[in-house]
Amino acid sequence: MKLYSMPSSGNSYKVRLLLALLGRDCTTIDVEDNSPELAQAKADGRLPFGKAPVLQLDDGRLLPESNAILSWLGRGTEYVPGDAFDHAQMLGWMFWEQNQHEGVIAVRGALSFYPSRKHLATPDRMQDLLDRGHALLQIMENRLRGRDWLVGDHASLADICLYGYTCTAGSRGGFDMARFPAINRWLAGIAALPDYVGLEG
Amino acid sequence: MKLYSMPSSGNSYKVRLLLALLGRDCTTIDVEDNSPELAQAKADGRLPFGKAPVLQLDDGRLLPESNAILSWLGRGTEYVPGDAFDHAQMLGWMFWEQNQHEGVIAVRGALSFYPSRKHLATPDRMQDLLDRGHALLQIMENRLRGRDWLVGDHASLADICLYGYTCTAGSRGGFDMARFPAINRWLAGIAALPDYVGLEG
Ligand SMILES: N[C@@H](CCC(=O)N[C@@H](CS)C(=O)NCC(=O)O)C(=O)O
Ligand SMILES: N[C@@H](CCC(=O)N[C@@H](CS)C(=O)NCC(=O)O)C(=O)O
Repeated sequence: MKLYSMPSSGNSYKVRLLLALLGRDCTTIDVEDNSPELAQAKADGRLPFGKAPVLQLDDGRLLPESNAILSWLGRGTEYVPGDAFDHAQMLGWMFWEQNQHEGVIAVRGALSFYPSRKHLATPDRMQDLLDRGHALLQIMENRLRGRDWLVGDHASLADICLYGYTCTAGSRGGFDMARFPAINRWLAGIAALPDYVGLEG
Repeated sequence: MKLYSMPSSGNSYKVRLLLALLGRDCTTIDVEDNSPELAQAKADGRLPFGKAPVLQLDDGRLLPESNAILSWLGRGTEYVPGDAFDHAQMLGWMFWEQNQHEGVIAVRGALSFYPSRKHLATPDRMQDLLDRGHALLQIMENRLRGRDWLVGDHASLADICLYGYTCTAGSRGGFDMARFPAINRWLAGIAALPDYVGLEG
């Protein structure tokens, strides 16, 4: 099993985190943003949607999309709830992450973090992303008040998925995390899971 | 079972389409864009993420996110592949839809369709969305060449999901669908499924 993974990216990091938590071996092929390795992987047809991460099975089959890879690797483990409605809710948070959270929380972080994107970080855009991001984080905060995990009573793929970028919402994104005590507690809960690895490796 | 559904929206339509294909009964509560009914449903806490669609079970539990609702309603039916890798690939297309396709294909359509958004439809933005949309549709076209369905050999939730907005990519979005013969064949294949309903009801 091989993972085409972008070292700096939360979408790739989610998958590396689940692999670590599950103690699964996987060869990682680094395809950093704007690198020749990324261009080569695209040119070779290794990235079906032109994006990382992609998981390649030993028989060559390719699976794109971070959250689909989480679902594939997570099946039958403690990170996937047995209850069908909990399962559907878990997927709900994961679709929300891709549709709402990532386009704001990750994007504001990327505009600050990647030198190649700094010219896109106009004051108006950064303010709009800040306001929208605080509203999205408030949805997570409300959910996590009085609960340890987003769904059920165990960490699930939804938590791992949303951890990917929420863990850098303060440091990269510049969001005011002091407003979100329940999120901070939840972030610490994930970092305390056995075999946890951080974004930097 | 109740569905809070926005009549004009592809995200709500996907769910209505699956309900029809499955012959499932469901009370539909219309919450049109910018309507008092939508505002009321938000104020009453019926829309956990502030968006439609939301499915409400008979015991009151709420499930947001169109693709999570498809997964919940589809479990155990012919629209969910039995093979685990096909299942993961199906989810991959659904995450891609939320992360890439919807933010371009649906958004360009909405900027033309909803009078309240026309002021956001600047020529630069519309051109950028047109170019990005054609590139995304090309990914679907490449996949559908020589295949009837996105995954496996039966229509799956991935097809229903991507049909939601692709069916209006020409009419609302202004994309040049003549470039995409395989997509057009696939659109016709979905419209030919028994008990199919169109976006308008
Ligand atoms: N929906 C995809 C998004 C993947 C994505 O956007 N990957 C970015 C890095 S975060 C990428 O590969 N960018 C490289 C490029 O577009 O050239 C997922 O969750 O895997
Ligand atoms: N990711 C969500 C997106 C839902 C969504 O964006 N719904 C829009 C209509 S397409 C909505 O409810 N807009 C009303 C509002 O934001 O006030 C899903 O797939 O269900």
